[in-house]
Amino acid sequence: MIFRDVLEYKTKSEERLDITKDVQAVVEKYSIQEGLCNIFLKGTTAALTINEDDRMLMADIKKMLARIAPPDKFYQHPENAHSHLRSILMNNCLSIPIANGKLLLGTWQSILLWEFDVEERDRMIVVTMIGG
Amino acid sequence: MIFRDVLEYKTKSEERLDITKDVQAVVEKYSIQEGLCNIFLKGTTAALTINEDDRMLMADIKKMLARIAPPDKFYQHPENAHSHLRSILMNNCLSIPIANGKLLLGTWQSILLWEFDVEERDRMIVVTMIGG
Amino acid sequence: MIFRDVLEYKTKSEERLDITKDVQAVVEKYSIQEGLCNIFLKGTTAALTINEDDRMLMADIKKMLARIAPPDKFYQHPENAHSHLRSILMNNCLSIPIANGKLLLGTWQSILLWEFDVEERDRMIVVTMIGG
Repeated sequence: MIFRDVLEYKTKSEERLDITKDVQAVVEKYSIQEGLCNIFLKGTTAALTINEDDRMLMADIKKMLARIAPPDKFYQHPENAHSHLRSILMNNCLSIPIANGKLLLGTWQSILLWEFDVEERDRMIVVTMIGG
Repeated sequence: MIFRDVLEYKTKSEERLDITKDVQAVVEKYSIQEGLCNIFLKGTTAALTINEDDRMLMADIKKMLARIAPPDKFYQHPENAHSHLRSILMNNCLSIPIANGKLLLGTWQSILLWEFDVEERDRMIVVTMIGG
Repeated sequence: MIFRDVLEYKTKSEERLDITKDVQAVVEKYSIQEGLCNIFLKGTTAALTINEDDRMLMADIKKMLARIAPPDKFYQHPENAHSHLRSILMNNCLSIPIANGKLLLGTWQSILLWEFDVEERDRMIVVTMIGG
């Protein structure tokens, strides 16, 4: 069986959000015990990734992204080219196994939504669950 | 139910192709209304990504990749090491939700096939749909 | 139908392992003929990628990662920040089509597990198969 739901967020520029609990809540809402959970971000200047939600690590990641795709470089695409570049280097879709009703994440794994755009945005994440 | 089809392309070096319509056509061919669409690129020197199909942005992305994995650097792997490196930084598989018979992409999201290899190549993309 | 199994590895720092045969063995163990195989790494300082398993290319990839996320830089996250950064640039989940009982990989495609952490680790990879 396939189930689908949508999570919505209002994000601030350069913000990261830990959305693990929200995705887990969707899995529980549909009572999925065993299966696979796909999350898909509808957007081209934000990203999804799974890693440790640590404030210091987030600062390190931002610095790395600023080295690879600096905001103040000259780009051809106007305004938010660096936001697109960062989005491309990370992911916009992830698939996570579900076991015993829980996302099968490791101890330090959190699902993170990164906003790379230059202003506030409304973000939509589609959660598709296969299983039962 | 699971359905599978294959898309084939003849690509030129450094080319990018917007394959969104082709993937959507496969979804329609199998009349999938609700589900998940996985696309998988059989290749190690090209990549798939979802982002805005804008000519100026594409130039910015190429410049970023040229900074990270320059073609004229000395590499141990002969000939096309930079093509492999760029492929690894991007993706070779993506999963996109299907709703009401359509790929659930955002307004600016296109599915892009990037050819990073140094000469013309034949590329095969496997489309696997789960749903009905 | 959905099937799940787990692969376990003891990895050394900076090691890469070709796990293609192990994943294929799981597909055969459950006699999956047609479907999709998801592999998910439970960890934040290692990564999964699909590319050519060539010793010289692996050296080139390590050099690129050392340029992007050098181990000897000052980071805020203690000890293994560069391991997390490399993990984020690559992937921790992949989905591969299965056809005629085989992972539908290209000629040069191998599934590679990269250990980026600074010491020996136990790694768990969840294999979820959808199909039959």
